[in-house]
Amino acid sequence: MLNVLFSAEDARWPEYEGPLKQAFDKAGLDVALSRDHAPETVDYIVFAPNGPVSDFSPYTRCKALLSLWAGIESVADNQTLTQPLLRMVDHSLTQGMVEWVVGHALRHHLGMDAHINGQDGVWCNKAYPPIAAHRPVTILGLGALGAACGRALAALGFPVSGWSRTAKEITGLRCYYGAQGLQSALSGAEIVVLLLPDTPATENTLNAQTLSLLAKGAFVINPGRGPLIDDDALLSALDSGQVGHATLDVFRIEPLPPTHPFWSHPGVTVTPHIASFTRPESASEVIAAQILRGENGEPFLHVVNRDAGY
Amino acid sequence: MLNVLFSAEDARWPEYEGPLKQAFDKAGLDVALSRDHAPETVDYIVFAPNGPVSDFSPYTRCKALLSLWAGIESVADNQTLTQPLLRMVDHSLTQGMVEWVVGHALRHHLGMDAHINGQDGVWCNKAYPPIAAHRPVTILGLGALGAACGRALAALGFPVSGWSRTAKEITGLRCYYGAQGLQSALSGAEIVVLLLPDTPATENTLNAQTLSLLAKGAFVINPGRGPLIDDDALLSALDSGQVGHATLDVFRIEPLPPTHPFWSHPGVTVTPHIASFTRPESASEVIAAQILRGENGEPFLHVVNRDAGY
Ligand SMILES: NC(=O)c1ccc[n+]([C@@H]2O[C@H](COP(=O)([O-])OP(=O)(O)OC[C@H]3O[C@@H](n4cnc5c(N)ncnc54)[C@H](OP(=O)(O)O)[C@@H]3O)[C@@H](O)[C@H]2O)c1
Ligand SMILES: NC(=O)c1ccc[n+]([C@@H]2O[C@H](COP(=O)([O-])OP(=O)(O)OC[C@H]3O[C@@H](n4cnc5c(N)ncnc54)[C@H](OP(=O)(O)O)[C@@H]3O)[C@@H](O)[C@H]2O)c1
Repeated sequence: MLNVLFSAEDARWPEYEGPLKQAFDKAGLDVALSRDHAPETVDYIVFAPNGPVSDFSPYTRCKALLSLWAGIESVADNQTLTQPLLRMVDHSLTQGMVEWVVGHALRHHLGMDAHINGQDGVWCNKAYPPIAAHRPVTILGLGALGAACGRALAALGFPVSGWSRTAKEITGLRCYYGAQGLQSALSGAEIVVLLLPDTPATENTLNAQTLSLLAKGAFVINPGRGPLIDDDALLSALDSGQVGHATLDVFRIEPLPPTHPFWSHPGVTVTPHIASFTRPESASEVIAAQILRGENGEPFLHVVNRDAGY
Repeated sequence: MLNVLFSAEDARWPEYEGPLKQAFDKAGLDVALSRDHAPETVDYIVFAPNGPVSDFSPYTRCKALLSLWAGIESVADNQTLTQPLLRMVDHSLTQGMVEWVVGHALRHHLGMDAHINGQDGVWCNKAYPPIAAHRPVTILGLGALGAACGRALAALGFPVSGWSRTAKEITGLRCYYGAQGLQSALSGAEIVVLLLPDTPATENTLNAQTLSLLAKGAFVINPGRGPLIDDDALLSALDSGQVGHATLDVFRIEPLPPTHPFWSHPGVTVTPHIASFTRPESASEVIAAQILRGENGEPFLHVVNRDAGY
């Protein structure tokens, strides 16, 4: 019998209780799932940063912290955490992100907003977009999400470049890495998608200097994390026309305060951190599979590198 | 030496003259391209319905009419036309249509308009879309354009059904055909894309009865031709909520008259016949290839079936 502690927002419990129990059964795991096991009896913690637990020192028997979220910046530097921290990598989380990123990339590529907002009886068919083959896209971050988005955009015909910390090879993508690689990856890009984690090294990846590398009028799409962009530099680039439009799903402070200039700037679309989310059914199967690996003495997948911060 | 007559809108001539001449050279064809050859000396006509020629009887030597457009309804029943009529099937025309259809399908799937129009400082992240796997899409018309759009949507994870006149097999799509097939193809569809030609048999394909087969709140996307939809039935379905939104690129009368209710209906997005268009460079290569086939005694491609009307 394994004791699994569920430590996420209260609202998640009714969504996850059934799917988790079912996934444990299906995996042949004998689990007592609860929101209040005594700390020293807990074998695994299913975890979200907005749940009750933040001091991990009493969880002396705990073999791993299983995050429900892909972004783990708020727990990665928790000094009380000595157990392995596992990021969520889940098919439907990835799928949702691909749909959101491809959708907004096509929206900007096609100039849809002019039609959505322009139902004024004036038939104006003068400006045509190029085909995707002439619209270079750059994805910053080539992890579970960035690589999948890059592949989907390339399949639609966009020339896609990508950037990561370490060298990568992904069929159909032009891959860059490291500080020098960032300059090359961004040069002339007409659409930039940010799917980096929030770490000290990624803060302000898009700033006045790097924004100046983009093609004039480029589109910025940020479903990654707010601190990846220098907000003031982005606002200046929007005002100068260097950036044509920014669609932002994540912010330094969430919910984005009602007085923040992003809400009122005509060149910014704010979406309320909805690009993608973990679905209970598929995430529960991922969690059961990780626990099964642990119990079988196999290495966990997607273990966070605490030094790198992701 | 072949005499090729260019008979399209005047505005097209400066766009096409260079690319056509280049394509003929590249194909090793010795061509005199002009806008005013004497009719009885003309070997081929590069044609658009809005150009000067509509009586084809004096073109006694002409071996084929090469349409610049994919939609040929306005010439298909021209009684003076005895020469083969060739539809335009061109990679970049298809590619542009795929981008437009996938873009608007994702726009509706993700509910983007609420965010594009809702920059009001209110952070509201309650309604999430399903993933594409749970959003059935139906494509009416599985020709050059419909099949390509269906494949692209299936590659993104949508379950795609398609409908054509004759039986078809397309990997990854559930294919239906004929009158009975239409009922099955539309039943429960949440997104419907119309890529049928305008013929007597396709008029009002979407009408009160067929609209009632869709899932409640379905999205209708029409980049095909205006007469495919019964306008009044669509407006009623929008008012009742049976259709959630319609994005229409083509109309019975174009430009759509400023007083038409589609302009002012909040559930309709009008786009001004811009879904896709023939690009001079690629279309010129298609035309040269067709002429080469004719001169080599090979059968032409994409010959319009005048009885079927497409
Ligand atoms: N808006 C939403 O709804 C939502 C939902 C889920 C996730 N997210 C965000 O998306 C982010 C990415 O998720 P993921 O699952 O794809 O993460 P991941 O698999 O850990 O991938 C992270 C990528 O970023 C790269 N990277 C990290 N630090 C870098 C640096 N200093 N310089 C260059 N590249 C760097 C990594 O490079 P290497 O490949 O070399 O390691 C990797 O390619 C998450 O961290 C989260 O913040 C947002
Ligand atoms: N909005 C724009 O910018 C734009 C641009 C280009 C084209 N278009 C429109 O798109 C249309 C489709 O182009 P395409 O190149 O794909 O044409 P296509 O290759 O001729 O394909 C037509 C498709 O419609 C099907 N069809 C025809 N009559 C039917 C009927 N009575 N019942 C059921 N299915 C029927 C055909 O069935 P079979 O396969 O059995 O023959 C075929 O699958 C054009 O006709 C044009 O009107 C619009």
